[in-house]
Amino acid sequence: MTLLARSSPRAALAASSSSLTRSALSAATRRSLSSKAAPTLAPAATTSSSSSSSSRSATASSPLNAPTRSLATHATSSPSSSKGPTGVLLMNMGGPATLPEVGDFLSRLFHDRDLIQLPWQKRLAPLIAARRTPKIVEQYRKIGGGSPILRWSRLQGEEMCKLLDEIHPETAPHKPYVAFRYARPLTEEALDEMARDGVQRAVAFTQYPQYSCSTTGSNLNELYREIMRRQERGAPEGNIEWSVIDRWPTHEGLVEAFTQRVKDVLNTYDPSIRPTVPIMFSAHSLPMQIVSGRGDPYPAEVAATVNAVMGRLGWSNPYRVTWQSQVGPSAWLGPQTSDTVKGWAKQGYKDAVVVPIAFTQDHIETLYELDLELAEEAEEHGMKLKRAESLNDHPLFIKALADIAAAHLDSVYGGGVHDKTGEVAQTATTGQVFAWNQGRTSRQMQIRCPGCSNAVCGSQKAFFGQGQVGVGEDLMRGIGGQE
Amino acid sequence: MTLLARSSPRAALAASSSSLTRSALSAATRRSLSSKAAPTLAPAATTSSSSSSSSRSATASSPLNAPTRSLATHATSSPSSSKGPTGVLLMNMGGPATLPEVGDFLSRLFHDRDLIQLPWQKRLAPLIAARRTPKIVEQYRKIGGGSPILRWSRLQGEEMCKLLDEIHPETAPHKPYVAFRYARPLTEEALDEMARDGVQRAVAFTQYPQYSCSTTGSNLNELYREIMRRQERGAPEGNIEWSVIDRWPTHEGLVEAFTQRVKDVLNTYDPSIRPTVPIMFSAHSLPMQIVSGRGDPYPAEVAATVNAVMGRLGWSNPYRVTWQSQVGPSAWLGPQTSDTVKGWAKQGYKDAVVVPIAFTQDHIETLYELDLELAEEAEEHGMKLKRAESLNDHPLFIKALADIAAAHLDSVYGGGVHDKTGEVAQTATTGQVFAWNQGRTSRQMQIRCPGCSNAVCGSQKAFFGQGQVGVGEDLMRGIGGQE
Repeated sequence: MTLLARSSPRAALAASSSSLTRSALSAATRRSLSSKAAPTLAPAATTSSSSSSSSRSATASSPLNAPTRSLATHATSSPSSSKGPTGVLLMNMGGPATLPEVGDFLSRLFHDRDLIQLPWQKRLAPLIAARRTPKIVEQYRKIGGGSPILRWSRLQGEEMCKLLDEIHPETAPHKPYVAFRYARPLTEEALDEMARDGVQRAVAFTQYPQYSCSTTGSNLNELYREIMRRQERGAPEGNIEWSVIDRWPTHEGLVEAFTQRVKDVLNTYDPSIRPTVPIMFSAHSLPMQIVSGRGDPYPAEVAATVNAVMGRLGWSNPYRVTWQSQVGPSAWLGPQTSDTVKGWAKQGYKDAVVVPIAFTQDHIETLYELDLELAEEAEEHGMKLKRAESLNDHPLFIKALADIAAAHLDSVYGGGVHDKTGEVAQTATTGQVFAWNQGRTSRQMQIRCPGCSNAVCGSQKAFFGQGQVGVGEDLMRGIGGQE
Repeated sequence: MTLLARSSPRAALAASSSSLTRSALSAATRRSLSSKAAPTLAPAATTSSSSSSSSRSATASSPLNAPTRSLATHATSSPSSSKGPTGVLLMNMGGPATLPEVGDFLSRLFHDRDLIQLPWQKRLAPLIAARRTPKIVEQYRKIGGGSPILRWSRLQGEEMCKLLDEIHPETAPHKPYVAFRYARPLTEEALDEMARDGVQRAVAFTQYPQYSCSTTGSNLNELYREIMRRQERGAPEGNIEWSVIDRWPTHEGLVEAFTQRVKDVLNTYDPSIRPTVPIMFSAHSLPMQIVSGRGDPYPAEVAATVNAVMGRLGWSNPYRVTWQSQVGPSAWLGPQTSDTVKGWAKQGYKDAVVVPIAFTQDHIETLYELDLELAEEAEEHGMKLKRAESLNDHPLFIKALADIAAAHLDSVYGGGVHDKTGEVAQTATTGQVFAWNQGRTSRQMQIRCPGCSNAVCGSQKAFFGQGQVGVGEDLMRGIGGQE
């Protein structure tokens, strides 16, 4: 939008005559002002804009291509001409809703080169998936025959959008879509649905509060590739105007919802022992190759969530951040949740609380790994575990999702965030700035991991971050010719 | 104090007739009330108190001994009978002040079994130290012939205590002492000095904002062993009444001081590129054996500091938590700071800021590793680094130290924290609770790492956490006979 506001006065004018007049205009003005503060970015943008038709390939391998192509497409649309709803795309890993879907789910997972890189991956992935399928089918059978994640996601999306229509009417109506990385509905299905609805403006809203290249990054890469495919074949949904909520590890509402869930469990203990019960905040682990080798930001963001929740709890209990779901022979980040149980049991602890801190819905990782596998292991070691409920449909969590989306939309399109009376309660310019209300993406998203060798990440960041203050130097160098 | 207030009405009476009457009394009442809320702890305490003279060994190998012995000694003193100053013991790693001290410094470091466990350590440690000495001497020579850490620590301590006398007069006068783990003044020297001054009440104040068993934990184990030795030989300083500030990773004043240091660097960049310059928050790394194997809380607390600083900066720049000072062939936590520089340089970045986030004074790690070694490496890769200054004598940092100590002393001895006019501005009971104002130790300190096999850690935690709500189950089990 910064680029539009600067390079296309027509778009700004169009915005000023729309029904969103005042807010859109002030947003455009604001962005125009902020772009003046970053003059070195202008030449890059101008250059790329003028070479817009030069390169078109299905999957851009150079950071050059992505912004070039998308600037050209964005120039053909503007927020004010939007007729369809504002799409809110809930991105997540997903899980098989039924047992027959387990095989495909695993196959997609092992094919994902943003997640895992194997030699002869196209041949190996189906084999590994096939070998693991029976075991995983059994796990899903034990939790009722499938993952509830789609059901929760649909419900969260619907409820969030209802609130969002109230607190950010400027971009209403809002419609939720679900894009899972490994289960249906896949990103391509979500885009098809958005195309049918005539969506012209959408927010890619990761449902992982903490960013990892293996999770949100993989979803964004997939979304980017799908968009490129649509642009390639001239499909209108290739022109959707995107912005990204890429992380929200310490959003106040998220923290409060987690805190309530933890309090609910702590309150089940007798006050005499309550403050002595240790809490394990359990998050999905990552291979050390990704943590130490690539420099993934995820462990630090998980720790930030935990710190915020413990702060809200008044540091009421001893605790640790622990890591679950490790597989295979390579080194993963620890301490493992199961080792933590064993260690504390050995030290004489009889009770512990486990809090799933990186998933916001129930999943195989909570319902099977924690509730069945870990609980049984704990019992064998003489310890009784209690798990904090997943956020699922907690009203504070639904409200948090809506607040995050509203603050984000305000930072991109203006309009402020309204309270129940319809008054503007806060705006990105007057209120505090967070990772999720910095405009099209967070600044943090604009840099690649120091050890990243995945070219798609560069192109994807350049595409989604276009026109954003401080967009990656990959882009600046590539287009502006810094070297 | 909880135990004293409950088990010794005489001590409470003595307090009520002292010059600190009102505040001491209300604190005693408060603690008495809070101890009623944790009835299961009472029997343990009573039991241990009545068996106080049964076991005395120089280094307690069982959690049983420590609290037993110390409860007995505490009963002989009370805050109101204190004549010497309140000691504030600044604990840190330390560094050789002169080149001839380098050898001893390294030798102590490699002897420290709380830090590193080697086979035949007593024989190997001097050999490794001797072999590394020439190289490290050379590094200290390049930064001016010695570590400035003692000079900074003395200054920080003096300035902090001046403020502390004003904002927590109830425990005034306060006197700073320095206890380094590997350089002089060692813990034993600090205790000697405290003995000469007639100190009867002291705070062990770690100067590492983030807790690791390898740093603060090692200092506390050493302090615990020294106290046991003094008790063993009946020295009066064995009876000093201790409390511990064991971590303060997200104290507001600390975060603000760091934020100012980072802003000072960011402001040296042209506004046009300022928001694109990535920040590396660099902390001393740890072997993965300690992180994943033992479950050390340090990486999560470092991440919490970084998150708080970035929040205060309004997420102004892309950033990463990075890890420095890795040595040897085993796996350490990464991404390494030097690899991060190389990775981003490869991606085209020309500038980066580095912020030492886990040291609060200049050290070999800042002055040599970052300013000379890393800066040179960066230059070779075409990148210009700027380092945020260490906190050293930043007034906001000195004030933070005093605020932390005052809030802590208030939580142990009452009296509130006073503002400049002498009014009580906050108290632990009316204000927010943090890790550093939870009484004698934080609750987090009361649990051992899940993979801990160091018996001293258990005894040490039991000793310093005595009478504290929620003290480790090691203790409860050992004394209360839960099993």
